[in-house]
Amino acid sequence: MLRDSLRALVFDVFGTCVDWRGSVIRAGQSVRPEGVDWSSLADEWRREGYIRGIARIRAGEMPYVGSDVLFRRKLDELIPKYGVNGLSETEVDDLAHAWSRLDPWPDTVAGLQRLKSRYIISPLSNGSFATLTAMAKRGGMPWDCIISTELRQTFKPEREAYLLAANLLELRPDRVMLVAAHDSDLKGAQAAGLHTALVPRPAEWGPNAPPLPPADPSFDYVATDFGDLATQLGIPA
Amino acid sequence: MLRDSLRALVFDVFGTCVDWRGSVIRAGQSVRPEGVDWSSLADEWRREGYIRGIARIRAGEMPYVGSDVLFRRKLDELIPKYGVNGLSETEVDDLAHAWSRLDPWPDTVAGLQRLKSRYIISPLSNGSFATLTAMAKRGGMPWDCIISTELRQTFKPEREAYLLAANLLELRPDRVMLVAAHDSDLKGAQAAGLHTALVPRPAEWGPNAPPLPPADPSFDYVATDFGDLATQLGIPA
Repeated sequence: MLRDSLRALVFDVFGTCVDWRGSVIRAGQSVRPEGVDWSSLADEWRREGYIRGIARIRAGEMPYVGSDVLFRRKLDELIPKYGVNGLSETEVDDLAHAWSRLDPWPDTVAGLQRLKSRYIISPLSNGSFATLTAMAKRGGMPWDCIISTELRQTFKPEREAYLLAANLLELRPDRVMLVAAHDSDLKGAQAAGLHTALVPRPAEWGPNAPPLPPADPSFDYVATDFGDLATQLGIPA
Repeated sequence: MLRDSLRALVFDVFGTCVDWRGSVIRAGQSVRPEGVDWSSLADEWRREGYIRGIARIRAGEMPYVGSDVLFRRKLDELIPKYGVNGLSETEVDDLAHAWSRLDPWPDTVAGLQRLKSRYIISPLSNGSFATLTAMAKRGGMPWDCIISTELRQTFKPEREAYLLAANLLELRPDRVMLVAAHDSDLKGAQAAGLHTALVPRPAEWGPNAPPLPPADPSFDYVATDFGDLATQLGIPA
């Protein structure tokens, strides 16, 4: 069975393991409780700063920079646009690092603990090595190691980003499974020869986001959360 | 105080965190209980395969290969030299990976747990990323992340090996302290601007090894084991 031949599970982080949107909104509200539309700012930060920044780098429209730089550059634009006035340099710097203090979804830590009992577990994220390490330490995510696409100055869904995980762990790609909430990520993993588990996160973009599409039938597993994935992989609760 | 400005502790692994010699001897004895001088084989494997292999690569006498390759090449020489006859290919491969199954010293895991309560803790080793990850998982070493010099195809004590740790963690070098049993490693860390803690491991080379030299007074801390280091750093037991 597939679950017996797998050796490592690698995880998308932003959206799959952690609630970036709620966490960024809370970080913003803690510095300016009133008068700023933090929900829209969070969405734009992620969509235009991170997702679009990575797409532009992949398209060759701008030189490589790490995701921490993308976050910081976009924040410097969003602060005046959203009328976030009078922040000190320390407060801006702290807010820029909100992405290293994202809260796990309620099932994440307990689910990872179960999955870790059988498999090597690691993030495989476009977040920086330092961001992923700090986030895991604060949130209690019990990774066996940290794999960031920054280690090869690439980004998912480039093929080499997925092969990086297999190569670092000295495993054949088909011994590795990506766990992610996003189809494009899982399709990239498939193309590189990894196995795939979809864990949809319908709350990722907030309560007013459109419903998610039905699960693509090509993924090896589809689970409602990390605990359900562990159960499907035969790991007792 | 220094202990308040530090953010991360990075650790030499072979000899400092784990008893490579005893573990390799036990791995050998488990496949050939009689007739092989596993103690001498272990010493030669480490000294001539790993330490000398790294020195030759650093001196430009041979092209870069990772430490797993150095271990495997030397084992293929040592098997006939020490009369280890009749091993299957699977047994040889398994023995070559003994370096990913090294047992922690008795104080290591409990000491790391204490140190982890205040600092980011990571290996900073010439062992491969996969070897360090597997060793930690098996031995229960609770690293926050895994840093191998393989990530930059370099080896300690090259300056860039130490800066790699600071760079990946996005910390100034003086916020990072190397914990190691070996003077040459600590001197390399000092030269790169890291702080240093010496934890001598007098049993590393076995019961008949010559006594260790007195501790160099330039190191920031000298501790008898990881628990003593935690205590000196003000972390309650």
